[in-house]
Amino acid sequence: WEGEFFPGISKIKYEGPNSKNPLSYKWYNADEEILGKKMKDWLRFSVAFWHTFRGSGADPFGAPTKSWPWEDGTNSVAMAKQRMRANFEFINKLGVERWCFHDRDIAPDGKTLEEANANLDEVVALAKQLQEGTTIRPLWGTAQLFMHPRYMHGAATSSEVGVYAYAAAQVKKAMEVTHYLGGENFVFWGGREGYQTLLNTDMKSELDHLARFLQAAVNWKKKIGFNGTLLIEPKPQEPTKHQYDWDAATTFAFLQKYGLTGEFKLNIECNHATLSGHSCHHELETARINGLLGNIDANTGDPQIGWDTDQFLTDIGEATLVMLSVIRNDGLAPGGFNFDAKLRRESTDVEDIFLAHISGMDTLARGLRNAAKLVEDGSLAELVKKRYQSFDSEIGALIEEGQADFETLEKKAMEWGEPSVPSGKQELAEIIFQSAL
Amino acid sequence: WEGEFFPGISKIKYEGPNSKNPLSYKWYNADEEILGKKMKDWLRFSVAFWHTFRGSGADPFGAPTKSWPWEDGTNSVAMAKQRMRANFEFINKLGVERWCFHDRDIAPDGKTLEEANANLDEVVALAKQLQEGTTIRPLWGTAQLFMHPRYMHGAATSSEVGVYAYAAAQVKKAMEVTHYLGGENFVFWGGREGYQTLLNTDMKSELDHLARFLQAAVNWKKKIGFNGTLLIEPKPQEPTKHQYDWDAATTFAFLQKYGLTGEFKLNIECNHATLSGHSCHHELETARINGLLGNIDANTGDPQIGWDTDQFLTDIGEATLVMLSVIRNDGLAPGGFNFDAKLRRESTDVEDIFLAHISGMDTLARGLRNAAKLVEDGSLAELVKKRYQSFDSEIGALIEEGQADFETLEKKAMEWGEPSVPSGKQELAEIIFQSAL
Amino acid sequence: WEGEFFPGISKIKYEGPNSKNPLSYKWYNADEEILGKKMKDWLRFSVAFWHTFRGSGADPFGAPTKSWPWEDGTNSVAMAKQRMRANFEFINKLGVERWCFHDRDIAPDGKTLEEANANLDEVVALAKQLQEGTTIRPLWGTAQLFMHPRYMHGAATSSEVGVYAYAAAQVKKAMEVTHYLGGENFVFWGGREGYQTLLNTDMKSELDHLARFLQAAVNWKKKIGFNGTLLIEPKPQEPTKHQYDWDAATTFAFLQKYGLTGEFKLNIECNHATLSGHSCHHELETARINGLLGNIDANTGDPQIGWDTDQFLTDIGEATLVMLSVIRNDGLAPGGFNFDAKLRRESTDVEDIFLAHISGMDTLARGLRNAAKLVEDGSLAELVKKRYQSFDSEIGALIEEGQADFETLEKKAMEWGEPSVPSGKQELAEIIFQSAL
Amino acid sequence: WEGEFFPGISKIKYEGPNSKNPLSYKWYNADEEILGKKMKDWLRFSVAFWHTFRGSGADPFGAPTKSWPWEDGTNSVAMAKQRMRANFEFINKLGVERWCFHDRDIAPDGKTLEEANANLDEVVALAKQLQEGTTIRPLWGTAQLFMHPRYMHGAATSSEVGVYAYAAAQVKKAMEVTHYLGGENFVFWGGREGYQTLLNTDMKSELDHLARFLQAAVNWKKKIGFNGTLLIEPKPQEPTKHQYDWDAATTFAFLQKYGLTGEFKLNIECNHATLSGHSCHHELETARINGLLGNIDANTGDPQIGWDTDQFLTDIGEATLVMLSVIRNDGLAPGGFNFDAKLRRESTDVEDIFLAHISGMDTLARGLRNAAKLVEDGSLAELVKKRYQSFDSEIGALIEEGQADFETLEKKAMEWGEPSVPSGKQELAEIIFQSAL
Repeated sequence: WEGEFFPGISKIKYEGPNSKNPLSYKWYNADEEILGKKMKDWLRFSVAFWHTFRGSGADPFGAPTKSWPWEDGTNSVAMAKQRMRANFEFINKLGVERWCFHDRDIAPDGKTLEEANANLDEVVALAKQLQEGTTIRPLWGTAQLFMHPRYMHGAATSSEVGVYAYAAAQVKKAMEVTHYLGGENFVFWGGREGYQTLLNTDMKSELDHLARFLQAAVNWKKKIGFNGTLLIEPKPQEPTKHQYDWDAATTFAFLQKYGLTGEFKLNIECNHATLSGHSCHHELETARINGLLGNIDANTGDPQIGWDTDQFLTDIGEATLVMLSVIRNDGLAPGGFNFDAKLRRESTDVEDIFLAHISGMDTLARGLRNAAKLVEDGSLAELVKKRYQSFDSEIGALIEEGQADFETLEKKAMEWGEPSVPSGKQELAEIIFQSAL
Repeated sequence: WEGEFFPGISKIKYEGPNSKNPLSYKWYNADEEILGKKMKDWLRFSVAFWHTFRGSGADPFGAPTKSWPWEDGTNSVAMAKQRMRANFEFINKLGVERWCFHDRDIAPDGKTLEEANANLDEVVALAKQLQEGTTIRPLWGTAQLFMHPRYMHGAATSSEVGVYAYAAAQVKKAMEVTHYLGGENFVFWGGREGYQTLLNTDMKSELDHLARFLQAAVNWKKKIGFNGTLLIEPKPQEPTKHQYDWDAATTFAFLQKYGLTGEFKLNIECNHATLSGHSCHHELETARINGLLGNIDANTGDPQIGWDTDQFLTDIGEATLVMLSVIRNDGLAPGGFNFDAKLRRESTDVEDIFLAHISGMDTLARGLRNAAKLVEDGSLAELVKKRYQSFDSEIGALIEEGQADFETLEKKAMEWGEPSVPSGKQELAEIIFQSAL
Repeated sequence: WEGEFFPGISKIKYEGPNSKNPLSYKWYNADEEILGKKMKDWLRFSVAFWHTFRGSGADPFGAPTKSWPWEDGTNSVAMAKQRMRANFEFINKLGVERWCFHDRDIAPDGKTLEEANANLDEVVALAKQLQEGTTIRPLWGTAQLFMHPRYMHGAATSSEVGVYAYAAAQVKKAMEVTHYLGGENFVFWGGREGYQTLLNTDMKSELDHLARFLQAAVNWKKKIGFNGTLLIEPKPQEPTKHQYDWDAATTFAFLQKYGLTGEFKLNIECNHATLSGHSCHHELETARINGLLGNIDANTGDPQIGWDTDQFLTDIGEATLVMLSVIRNDGLAPGGFNFDAKLRRESTDVEDIFLAHISGMDTLARGLRNAAKLVEDGSLAELVKKRYQSFDSEIGALIEEGQADFETLEKKAMEWGEPSVPSGKQELAEIIFQSAL
Repeated sequence: WEGEFFPGISKIKYEGPNSKNPLSYKWYNADEEILGKKMKDWLRFSVAFWHTFRGSGADPFGAPTKSWPWEDGTNSVAMAKQRMRANFEFINKLGVERWCFHDRDIAPDGKTLEEANANLDEVVALAKQLQEGTTIRPLWGTAQLFMHPRYMHGAATSSEVGVYAYAAAQVKKAMEVTHYLGGENFVFWGGREGYQTLLNTDMKSELDHLARFLQAAVNWKKKIGFNGTLLIEPKPQEPTKHQYDWDAATTFAFLQKYGLTGEFKLNIECNHATLSGHSCHHELETARINGLLGNIDANTGDPQIGWDTDQFLTDIGEATLVMLSVIRNDGLAPGGFNFDAKLRRESTDVEDIFLAHISGMDTLARGLRNAAKLVEDGSLAELVKKRYQSFDSEIGALIEEGQADFETLEKKAMEWGEPSVPSGKQELAEIIFQSAL
């Protein structure tokens, strides 16, 4: 492959909301300041290598549909390097500074672990070279522990000790290359850490094994001097019937039980949130108030669909809620927004790759602008503050300090008589919220 | 009301599977030994006062349908006492030894807390008297902190400090009467501890308040010498959009965060399990392996329905899975099986109250017999044991002791080459399971 | 009750998007023309009497929370008349021209049908009087065939012939008073026309009975000279496990089977749409392309909740899709938008009733403005047209006329070789759509 | 490949419920008579070629896991013929007489339609030869119109006329070979006949095209003298966001609208039923009472999973309900039970293919035995009959003949006063049902 991968497309520029050019940003203006930070620093966008460069359009009922001009039909190291160059051209033209990868997406697997590692090293060396002189770095790396049939019963939770060891070796290496490339985080998505049926599963042992595995990862991270954040990405199910990292709260329970709380944060994915029965905002807030909000996999599902559709987020209201959480978290750094999202299977133009990312970026940028309006306006925060003001009292303070026992409280309750309970003002809150959209 | 409440119905007896008499047990034989325990000791059935004696058949689109002959249309203390007598006749005729109640179900509320407490005391005194000379005791008591409009924003998580205090007073009293009646457990179901919208909610504060409240309950329990187990009953939503005790894992995360783990166990309800996206068996096992399985609210939902239908469990396979968990837990005592289940709205014969309970009891009894067959046969347990046998090795032991670091594991992985991964044998496990039904 | 019901609130005015006054319209400007029609003629808003004036805030786990100052705690005819006056003041202050009612919402039931009818007549007479000199008329009336315990097994599909007859009498009367009040439509929502379990149900007979009932309604409508549209409102379930009018397509199947197609249209409710697994837009389009789109019950559900939450629609994107369907339908008249939506249980200020309606009206008005932008811009329609242009060909025409047999098509397929299949351009369509929001 | 494909496994025999041999039937005894028909004639089991011989274990997150010894890693015609021989050995050893196939499962696609047809002819010739001297015949054939990227926008509903023509050619040929092999039915599963987003879709045109396509199929069937039943298989979604043949009722609406009712029946799949929000029993009964029950794709989903898991049915209660519908339909012939079900991805032993089918067959056989018990016992049917007995009256007859107008009914309602409404006896019905399991 010679020359440009995307010859017809030049660097995407901010042209503002009135532009009719689909290949421009209407809302994302990287260097514009919002609430004291540049948009790019709030948003820290990242391209997901796997969806963008390895997504084939295949689904359980359909063969691949994409035939990108630069693909030669092989899974060779040469092809992998070509793709990596396409990746960097794409990132540059999009104007972002981060990318995410699985070990097996960027380089072909090998017949042996040694061969796989060698393949990975060769492609990583090129990526390192392509990064040079740029500010582009991995937002995070990860090990792909779910595609290969050896992982069919899980990786760290496999019933086979040999698989556990293999997975450890793979994570070890993936962590090393992430570190080498200047990656800022390392992700664990336990796609097959779970079960298909409890009938054949020893859940307790599997969870014990998972905890040991993660502790070993922490130890390794420290040993190699990798300072990135370790992130767990919850997902309720798919491919398994039940994944152990079901949602933020479940993962928090696990981390606490095994003494891993200080070592991990969460990578919240919106589509995973809704599959687990929560709004994305709920998952973000659950992570945030427990000090666990580390990264966002920015995508969305379809409210009527029960599997992971990994769509680019286009809902402005949703994006505004997401950005409210991010603002309250004072940003995500060293985490960011990874577009764990894919073109629809039927979107087969090269241009569509750009359109999809522009759409996702603009939606979040618009969400940021809206959330900033809400913050600056202040009336929503005021409404919430007012709602809880009765706790700004002597007895409130006593309660919050853990000093109010039942006898004291009973005495108060009898003294006060029937408490007055004001309206929750949900409709007013919704009006205020909508006025910022 | 004079004489019997259920004059046409005599004590329900075990008549075996071939009986055609619907008012008999086909599978539940209280004193029969199964795996070394009497059926009644495995099952510890309890009648839920609220569904059985206060369930009106009303639903969001319909008025009450039940017109039990003993009801006089009032909510007086006299009526409450009459109902309590009906309750004891029912329990006696059913042949169980436990009942569960909310404070406000068994006695009318009052204009003041003092009046409500007095009403409660009067009815409780009668219950105490009716218990005398019998082995009937409350499986658990609880405070109803969701019906009254004062609790519309929650009880321990209300935005109003006065409501928090009122709830504390109510729990204090309910705990006292449960203790007085010889109750073995005390339940917290946080029906309104959650939110309708995050827009008007300070989730962190609300959860902090909830933890303070539960700690105060622990302190009070100790102060009054109540040795019963405190139980939290998870439910994902309904009436709120999102309840804080979403499921077993979420509640476990909460208990750990606030240092409450040793003080609480869980009351798992099957219908709540499925509403939260889990199988009932999953929730039971999650509770069990974390030492939290305290009680079961024995009911079921409809797999196509998204709200709490509180049906009596009739699914034999489901009941067998439930009993497998109970057997692994060596029973539930001091917890048991509470029938948090109600007649269908259209079931309006007095007889239907008996039929429903018989159906639920027989289903669990049948589940127990089946589970015992599985345990005695041993081949399912053998299949599971065999699946994990590769961990019964030197490296397996190292892993389980937390001694296997990534370098050791990588070395092993390279030494071993591609691991062999046997079939999961799910279909075989299903055949073995079904053969016990 | 003397004087105004809403003394602090004056007529709601359009103040434009920059107004900070929550009691004003930011987007709804009744007389402004959009695509050749006044906003009020596109939107034809209607107040739902039951939610607005009979909604108590009760839910399956909670007692009523609303205590409107004009309520005296009775269900008397006098109270009913007072409420009707409140209704008209509310409608006037809101600035809409339509209302919807069930017979039993506006007037108390009676011990006999005769008494119930007399109560209804008295309240209807007042409503008629309050309508005089105004343009306010019922958008539609309906008979409440689900609250009373007699309807627990259904109305037209009850297993009891006496209930069928009673329901007929009730619909007869409700249709008469709707006609008398100048109502433009009459609705059938079969809340209990369905089943709780197939085990005790003869579904075929029940559906036959339903068809007979609806045919009799058609006959009666003609006999009394009522020219309004008869509307069926699909809902998948709740209160029943399974309602016969599950969704638009199911209802269409039923209407065709029983030869009722020309006589009925559909009243599509957004919350019912999503409960049946469809987007609201899907249901609207399904109704529209089959000539059945008659009315919209404008509300929304919560994507994570499995029951009918009947919330006021606040999603701008959703509202834009809804209005696209309405524009393609050239409006809904004689149908309109009925706010089958209720305040949240915790919204207990009188003001909240206004806020909720303003929010719902402004959202749809904003949706209308957005949809008009899309129509005027034309690029979305162009994208769709271009997608299907290959059918604007000789063979396309042959197919569409039903003249293309398999032999002809096979010949063509062989002649043409592998067809080229362009991108579906979903991301581009989403960008265009979002640009109008 | 020489010799047997399943050398270690001999013909599966009926050994009765007490057998511990997993490779035996415990409930299915082919020639045993139940309710006047042999079990094999009630059940008419069929092996699905695609799942059984082309299922690779791949899923959206995982590579293939199966490595059957007879596979050589190619998709050649030679390999296809080998597989067909394996299929016949399997069918013989299982002791069934039917199989189902897609054109592209049994033979490789070609570069041109002509080449694909030639491949198909070669494999079909072998199948024909293998059928000779046996009673084995296709239960049905079908054309695979969803895997190839050309079908990404649908087949009969594609936006491209060339794809429509190609699909027609493919169905034409598939119908011919089904006829040639003595197939008894032909199935249309519109996997991609639907949409991903309404934003780019002209739903009305697409449905018109679909109807034209199906009419052409009817015409072709008649022309070639194929007397098999044409079957449409409803599915709500997956792979599309929304499939046009959503469920039985939706498909019935479509068939009626386009005048196709007499020409098609339905192939109900249990997993599709639950994905559309219905119980399998509901879909079967909906098809049955509308004269549309033609075939059953016997599988099941997981109640907590929102995609098609295509598991073998193992639920005894569910199987009993299914068989109740089949008995009421007096069997399914010329349709039958096709095992549209697959091994779990982790089930990788050759033996597992047998275990899975045995499990599915035994479950349905057990369901048949249970359903027969219910029919013979008669008390469930009696309960239903009694429930509706009030319609066995003069006015009931009038209603059912369509002669009862609203005036007559109102008169009756007033004459009768408040109707008495007996209990629905759901719990009793459930007890009776369970007693047969």
